[in-house]
Amino acid sequence: MPNDASLTALLGIRHPILLAPMDVVSAARLTEAVSNAGGFGILGGGYGERAWLERETARLTEVSAPFGIGFITWSLAKQPELLDVALDAQPRAVMLSFGDPRPFARRIKAAGARLICQVQSEDMAEQALEAGADILIAQGSEAGGHGASRTTIDIVTSIVDLAAGRAPVVAAGGIADGRGLAAMMMLGAAGVLLGTRFYASQEADGAEEAKRRICAARSGGTTRGIIFDMSRNNVWPAPFTGRCLINDHARRWSGRELELLQNVNTVAAEYAAAKAAGNFDIAAVIAGEAVGLIHDIPSAAEIVDRIATEAEQILLGRRNSSGALRG
Amino acid sequence: MPNDASLTALLGIRHPILLAPMDVVSAARLTEAVSNAGGFGILGGGYGERAWLERETARLTEVSAPFGIGFITWSLAKQPELLDVALDAQPRAVMLSFGDPRPFARRIKAAGARLICQVQSEDMAEQALEAGADILIAQGSEAGGHGASRTTIDIVTSIVDLAAGRAPVVAAGGIADGRGLAAMMMLGAAGVLLGTRFYASQEADGAEEAKRRICAARSGGTTRGIIFDMSRNNVWPAPFTGRCLINDHARRWSGRELELLQNVNTVAAEYAAAKAAGNFDIAAVIAGEAVGLIHDIPSAAEIVDRIATEAEQILLGRRNSSGALRG
Repeated sequence: MPNDASLTALLGIRHPILLAPMDVVSAARLTEAVSNAGGFGILGGGYGERAWLERETARLTEVSAPFGIGFITWSLAKQPELLDVALDAQPRAVMLSFGDPRPFARRIKAAGARLICQVQSEDMAEQALEAGADILIAQGSEAGGHGASRTTIDIVTSIVDLAAGRAPVVAAGGIADGRGLAAMMMLGAAGVLLGTRFYASQEADGAEEAKRRICAARSGGTTRGIIFDMSRNNVWPAPFTGRCLINDHARRWSGRELELLQNVNTVAAEYAAAKAAGNFDIAAVIAGEAVGLIHDIPSAAEIVDRIATEAEQILLGRRNSSGALRG
Repeated sequence: MPNDASLTALLGIRHPILLAPMDVVSAARLTEAVSNAGGFGILGGGYGERAWLERETARLTEVSAPFGIGFITWSLAKQPELLDVALDAQPRAVMLSFGDPRPFARRIKAAGARLICQVQSEDMAEQALEAGADILIAQGSEAGGHGASRTTIDIVTSIVDLAAGRAPVVAAGGIADGRGLAAMMMLGAAGVLLGTRFYASQEADGAEEAKRRICAARSGGTTRGIIFDMSRNNVWPAPFTGRCLINDHARRWSGRELELLQNVNTVAAEYAAAKAAGNFDIAAVIAGEAVGLIHDIPSAAEIVDRIATEAEQILLGRRNSSGALRG
């Protein structure tokens, strides 16, 4: 069975378009909207705030279409009981990112859920397959939020080769339209996982000002580093860094990370105050390199439909591409 | 006329596969081999060593298939008379990279040659189009050698949108097989430009040990920075950095660039000696992120044929892929 078909069959979806489980932003409303549109919504379990997770999963039990729940693995390891909250909601899949999935794999699969593992290297992919991952997400450095340094083209191709015949691979990082979906399928990916594109949707649980800044940002307007993690006293373990829009705060501290560390208490207080006030000149808007492709804030259903339709048109050959290979 | 067809028509080639004008490595022998195979060979004029350029262009006048000659623009600006040497060889195109092409555009076009400009940002693309560029190369950070920070997916999509209806766009950076060519065509590129893949060819004028190391390197085995430029006393103007294989020297100085600068005379002497001795534990093997896809040293003709054939097969099969979009 080719990867392409197995992804949609495994998840019970029409379109191979997955919602990235963006912490807080991918709440029940957005998850449901993506799933109801024929994509695969994945709730952003994030660091694991129990009250939030209980409230949002309770809302998800009313969704008829298949959905998933995602966790930051190294954070889940600190409060593994939250996996029970997630599994009680009967997700079609649990997605684990950033850490060793093996301690959780058996419980997930015993509950009848698929295991989706996001990886950024071949070693992580082997570990995930060993854990029994049903689907791999190959995440490139273009992605918004946390990730690692290898680019989407590189990591997708590498993981497709590694996982051939073992699990379908979904591409993540820098994709926001049907061209990107079609391109990733040419590399052998079975689908795509999108964060930033769905952040700028009606149903995303994010600040309107953050959505507006994503729409206004141009290509090249993001940066990857640990300035925003340092500024909120939440530095992730290597090799993970984070991508966000370049704002005043990022410009101020870029290349001065050690000085930031020396002043971290002052900066963290400023940062927390700015975040609470919705001041995105200081607080980070977490977003990926595909911001230049995003100019509006439609419904999640419209996003799914646009991407599927555009990719289909491209793949059906409107560009007459193969002829150009023998010019 | 769609971009796809105009590229091959503009250059008079069968396959939309271009040889990167790698300094020294892309000498007459490799340029001729790529062009004779139906791709587009581009001689690596590099920094402009007159004796080398006269010798290699003399050899090129015996090639019947169309070929090009490439220059580092900021270096050519120091000895603009070298453009005459190039134009005397009657290239089908001159490729300019890294700098303002406008001072050279009129002479190139007056000589009947096409102007190919490699760009890494929208501003550079606008400047190139203003200069009269017939073809743009959108180069992503995955590329070996000099380039900038935006990734191939990001910059190709951005430049395709910007140049729509004005010039065909060729994708560079991280591409080494037919999957990559097919994927770039889905993004709207008309073809690809390949460096590292052709470095590991029979006809490339590079050290056998360098070719062997490219074949042995795995994905993720390269790094972008300025350590090797500093070590040879040839630091490029911003925003340009260089990508090469991670070797002992790169590991030794990574994150210690300021200390390297303080010791630059000693390091430069060591580096020059290592380069002369073919010691690639210290001397850089310039290579891109696609190294993981390269495992052999075939003829350039075989490389062109493999990539064209694989891409064609993938593109002809894309109707099957479209089915997976409506699982």
